[in-house]
Amino acid sequence: MEVSNKYVVIKHHIEEAPKESDFEVKTESLNLLVDEGSDDIIVKNLYISIDPFQINRMKSFSPSQDALSSSTAIIPGKAIDGPVIGKVVASGNSKFEKGDLVLGVFTWAEYSLVKETSILRKLDSSEFPLTYHLGVLGYGGMTAYVGFFELCKPERGEKVFVSTACGNVGILVGQYAKLFGCYVVGCTGSHNKVVFLKEKLGFDDAFNYKEEKDLSSTLKRYFPEGIDIYFDNVGGKMLEAVIANMNTFGRVAICGATAEYTDLRKTGSLDLVNVIYKRITIKGFIATDFMIHHFSNFMKKTSNYLRTGELKVIEDISLGMESVPSAFVGLFNGSNVGKKIVRLVEDEE
Amino acid sequence: MEVSNKYVVIKHHIEEAPKESDFEVKTESLNLLVDEGSDDIIVKNLYISIDPFQINRMKSFSPSQDALSSSTAIIPGKAIDGPVIGKVVASGNSKFEKGDLVLGVFTWAEYSLVKETSILRKLDSSEFPLTYHLGVLGYGGMTAYVGFFELCKPERGEKVFVSTACGNVGILVGQYAKLFGCYVVGCTGSHNKVVFLKEKLGFDDAFNYKEEKDLSSTLKRYFPEGIDIYFDNVGGKMLEAVIANMNTFGRVAICGATAEYTDLRKTGSLDLVNVIYKRITIKGFIATDFMIHHFSNFMKKTSNYLRTGELKVIEDISLGMESVPSAFVGLFNGSNVGKKIVRLVEDEE
Repeated sequence: MEVSNKYVVIKHHIEEAPKESDFEVKTESLNLLVDEGSDDIIVKNLYISIDPFQINRMKSFSPSQDALSSSTAIIPGKAIDGPVIGKVVASGNSKFEKGDLVLGVFTWAEYSLVKETSILRKLDSSEFPLTYHLGVLGYGGMTAYVGFFELCKPERGEKVFVSTACGNVGILVGQYAKLFGCYVVGCTGSHNKVVFLKEKLGFDDAFNYKEEKDLSSTLKRYFPEGIDIYFDNVGGKMLEAVIANMNTFGRVAICGATAEYTDLRKTGSLDLVNVIYKRITIKGFIATDFMIHHFSNFMKKTSNYLRTGELKVIEDISLGMESVPSAFVGLFNGSNVGKKIVRLVEDEE
Repeated sequence: MEVSNKYVVIKHHIEEAPKESDFEVKTESLNLLVDEGSDDIIVKNLYISIDPFQINRMKSFSPSQDALSSSTAIIPGKAIDGPVIGKVVASGNSKFEKGDLVLGVFTWAEYSLVKETSILRKLDSSEFPLTYHLGVLGYGGMTAYVGFFELCKPERGEKVFVSTACGNVGILVGQYAKLFGCYVVGCTGSHNKVVFLKEKLGFDDAFNYKEEKDLSSTLKRYFPEGIDIYFDNVGGKMLEAVIANMNTFGRVAICGATAEYTDLRKTGSLDLVNVIYKRITIKGFIATDFMIHHFSNFMKKTSNYLRTGELKVIEDISLGMESVPSAFVGLFNGSNVGKKIVRLVEDEE
């Protein structure tokens, strides 16, 4: 049985901030039959995760390829891949059967022909919405959880600063930190988001970096007693200002550098005299390194917070394959709040 | 009994590279008698430790004061203080008696009037020369030892890069790393020092940074398989080049930033994309934080290496109070090799 299958590509490598015209939705013909006993599995995709790190795979020279063998470049004209949730429609592999809900690294397409190695796990939609497995119970949740608890090793009462605080990870770090008993200030890019962080998410305070001229003075105003922990998702000049305002034995966890992804000139400088005298630790990390030892704890703790309602889930969902380019571009111009997802079907059934 | 006591001061705050004319040797009259039962102790100083970190205390705004309450500013016209070895000549404190050899934080003077709290410990000159307690068995040795073993957590066969490799700390880090079984390359500032590192200290390789135009390409030449550990004593552009050449899970221990101490414009920028994807950890540290848990291990291991002759001690000793300014200035113009010390007496007896 042949179907028409829409998928998304980049037309060419993207070196700076992405534009919608850099992308194209193409159509191919796909056979939905698979050979019994083959490893071929066909998934009908329901939800595509839209993540800023993908921009690094879209460059002609991808800085990530050097370091991560798993992070292959995205090739212009070929379907982009990334975290996707789908439903198995045909399987030649005995471990998966028609109707299974699966999370994996699949193409940004209506249907993906995949192998078992591309599937991360089967999902169950009985307790939580499926989309949670792309956000709060997925990679972003793990990033917030291990970055905050394992890398930053917080103590109650410590002062925590979160940049890109309205992004998928920032929203969760801030909430974990509040639930743990820290003082939390977030930085974001609009007045509405500032209000949202304070009123809806319980951040102790928040500010709009676009309204601030001297970030170091701004941070001194919000942290008169200094910053103990900085969860960095933006990089650039903000890290410089944080180092100047950090307390001794301060910790910086860096999971993203959105400012630098699209403009390498935005790299900040590092004042090492402060780093030494304040004994600051700066750590870059990738949540997948922590899967084996920390995933089950993360799921247990986070699921409990979801059941009690203490952790709020913020999702920003667009509809249809045609919305993928604008959804992705929106990550870099400040238009999204929370986990960005594209929903491909009207109904999961 | 009154004696004439020479001591060294800065004439004014020093903001950039120090010059001999920034210093002055002054003379005061000092009474060598102390009251029985008082805490007053008078020490005749034998050896003054000359350390680059002191420049941070000589600035009008000392970046270290903010972070380290113990690191008070050096006041123009008042005697400078720092690590010194001396012999007690009079004591009102029953724990110390005339003739005791002591290591402490004393004035850069012929005689210092001190309290018990300024004395770190009594010394014994029977096995090792006293000067070792200012270098290989002192603060610099601890810095090399804890920085390499505790912060960098090396594994045998890892590739180690050491900047300021001919300085007090660099010489020891390189030797510890070789003895541990790592591949070690040092960077220094002259051809003679390059030869010295390779031929006398057993570094696998070394280069003169002044002869290199593009540090990142240089490092790629010396580390075709990448750098696992960087022991940073210089800061600035070198750290930038190292990050570009680092392997995944690379570690950077920063104990000094000599390039930045005297010229804040030399601050390097930090490429966070590499820091994240390579999961790099950067840690500033101060060896005194590790005294309680690591000093006895450090002394035991290092003393054994000294007994077997596996660890070479390189000292650079000047004679007399008048040589203090040039000794200090020399730390910043590349003229010293190994631990810089000023000897104040002809004979320890």
